Amino acid sequence: MSVKSDNPNVKGIKHMAFAVRDAKAALDAYARFLHVPADTAIVDYPKSKNRVALFNLGGIEYQLSQSLEEGGRFDAWIKERGGEGLHHICYEVENIDKALEHAKSQGADLRICKACGVYGSHPHPEGYVAFLDNDAGGIEIEFMQVYTPEELEKYNAYKGI
Amino acid sequence: MSVKSDNPNVKGIKHMAFAVRDAKAALDAYARFLHVPADTAIVDYPKSKNRVALFNLGGIEYQLSQSLEEGGRFDAWIKERGGEGLHHICYEVENIDKALEHAKSQGADLRICKACGVYGSHPHPEGYVAFLDNDAGGIEIEFMQVYTPEELEKYNAYKGI
Repeated sequence: MSVKSDNPNVKGIKHMAFAVRDAKAALDAYARFLHVPADTAIVDYPKSKNRVALFNLGGIEYQLSQSLEEGGRFDAWIKERGGEGLHHICYEVENIDKALEHAKSQGADLRICKACGVYGSHPHPEGYVAFLDNDAGGIEIEFMQVYTPEELEKYNAYKGI
Repeated sequence: MSVKSDNPNVKGIKHMAFAVRDAKAALDAYARFLHVPADTAIVDYPKSKNRVALFNLGGIEYQLSQSLEEGGRFDAWIKERGGEGLHHICYEVENIDKALEHAKSQGADLRICKACGVYGSHPHPEGYVAFLDNDAGGIEIEFMQVYTPEELEKYNAYKGI
């Protein structure tokens, strides 16, 4: 397929989510070998049924994500590949509707959000998110339009995903 | 294993290398769906026998890396996992000897550099590099001490890795 154009709506990396078997063990490695505080919090999210160690490293937000249920999003990914790894990169976009429109004009389809059962843009704790059904070099693409302070107030109910 | 301390020698992310089947096809996806120029150069490296599309996205250097030979570093990785993905993250360190000493004091071992056949710190095109034999959440860890301008001149012969 010929390359048409880049996506003018992408601002940068919001976070990188790694599928891990055990968030504590993975955090241990980041704490021992890399510049990550050993006392980083590990949080359970009831809606998505994930346990996540979240920290910043090199200016990037890392989420070491463990499924709390067998067959969950990260557990299934690990079983499919036989190993842990980078599950998706979430890119912050200026306007998620425009970003999705652009991506679709370039041949993208939408992938369901496993936590919410929704295709396309919908509210999450930090912003509107959507997933493409088109990996880039094996990495799932998520888009997020981060909330304004007013939207953050409005969508306060979407905690715990 | 109990967590002892973080590594004070790690400065940030130097690059992320993705194992891909076809650097051009992977670049196509980054160009169509994300903010990457479609005319990004794709370069063949004779020593490591890799074809690489290199660009910056969200302040991070991405290397979409394709083995030019069957059984090569990235080809073997893809076959082992059955899919493309993030192969390693290279972290820039202040002083690679100190970074390795610290990592070893935390239980790390060294992994061979497949391009050079060397364990531990050794010269590469942009700096001294070394690999740990300890993944963090499934991701290989590379350290790089980036050359000073004088060292860059001295190690000019190490092009093409």
